[in-house]
Amino acid sequence: MKELTKKVVEFTQERDWDQFHSPENLAKSISIEAGELLECFQWNSEYDIEEVKEELADVMNYCIQMSNKLNLDIKEIVELKLAINAKKYPVEKAKGKPTKYNKL
Amino acid sequence: MKELTKKVVEFTQERDWDQFHSPENLAKSISIEAGELLECFQWNSEYDIEEVKEELADVMNYCIQMSNKLNLDIKEIVELKLAINAKKYPVEKAKGKPTKYNKL
Amino acid sequence: MKELTKKVVEFTQERDWDQFHSPENLAKSISIEAGELLECFQWNSEYDIEEVKEELADVMNYCIQMSNKLNLDIKEIVELKLAINAKKYPVEKAKGKPTKYNKL
Amino acid sequence: MKELTKKVVEFTQERDWDQFHSPENLAKSISIEAGELLECFQWNSEYDIEEVKEELADVMNYCIQMSNKLNLDIKEIVELKLAINAKKYPVEKAKGKPTKYNKL
Repeated sequence: MKELTKKVVEFTQERDWDQFHSPENLAKSISIEAGELLECFQWNSEYDIEEVKEELADVMNYCIQMSNKLNLDIKEIVELKLAINAKKYPVEKAKGKPTKYNKL
Repeated sequence: MKELTKKVVEFTQERDWDQFHSPENLAKSISIEAGELLECFQWNSEYDIEEVKEELADVMNYCIQMSNKLNLDIKEIVELKLAINAKKYPVEKAKGKPTKYNKL
Repeated sequence: MKELTKKVVEFTQERDWDQFHSPENLAKSISIEAGELLECFQWNSEYDIEEVKEELADVMNYCIQMSNKLNLDIKEIVELKLAINAKKYPVEKAKGKPTKYNKL
Repeated sequence: MKELTKKVVEFTQERDWDQFHSPENLAKSISIEAGELLECFQWNSEYDIEEVKEELADVMNYCIQMSNKLNLDIKEIVELKLAINAKKYPVEKAKGKPTKYNKL
């Protein structure tokens, strides 16, 4: 992950794009790319795996940039959120149900 | 990354949620969470780092699940996309500009 | 509004696209187009008014289709929501503040 | 529509929120609310009509605000886009197919 982050950051630095990559603009970019990923599934559940690959990579790319910009460790924050979700969705209550925690 | 993917997948399996996690539903989920992340920056560029952490983790969580579901290697697809973007945005043309490739 | 809805619906019917326009797919489409609208403002607050026009029209188009599909009257539901928001955001508490109701 | 726009704008003015409603922030808001609308359909195609109503109203509300802010007439821009789409998607080519214009 560190190696990948390094590559992503270098790509940006070589192009002097850091000036555009405020946390706010990165949040917009993640949303924009998430929309393009969703477009792969707009009218039915069939999809072109090559398109999905590229769009998912775009979302991840900006997520990596945001975590780097804010000095967040991806592994750490995802594990932290899993711990929070484990309390919101205890196995015995949530098993087999897609219900949101506030309606469980 | 493999360790993290394993934890994310286990969380889902324990709750028998795999039945809901079609690629299509994961794409919707990434978009939904990206919207929540953007909400941290809705009215200005100030933000609560704790909220950003949680929302970014949610986006990453679903990205990890989608890559696992589709047997995609995150490192591989992000590097592949960097190579594609390097051609779309050659340093000498793109440097210091936020212009989209089709207008460069 | 009724006249506009009629035109939007006719466009769809002529192309036999009604089969793709489930409420779920329309919700995805609204999100996708909202992402394209946001892209007009991705890196700064400057924008091309012609692009904004087209993308805003796309979002509105799918909103009109969804309201038609679900037999919802746009004027009615927006006014209803204004009434709900008026309680969530009483003038004396919310004036001049961008704070979300649950933190007011 | 003019009457509805007037109500939406008054709601904002009473709260002195116009200062937050730049076109950019409204674009973010449309995306955020579109995500909440999509959440009504996150795990399956069933939905709670009351929730859908409120979220669709939120999207429309910000669309109305953006059109007002940019002096755009909703009917005009949607009709303009229909004319553009009619060329991209001629009936004889597009009928019964969900294919994007660049692949038709």
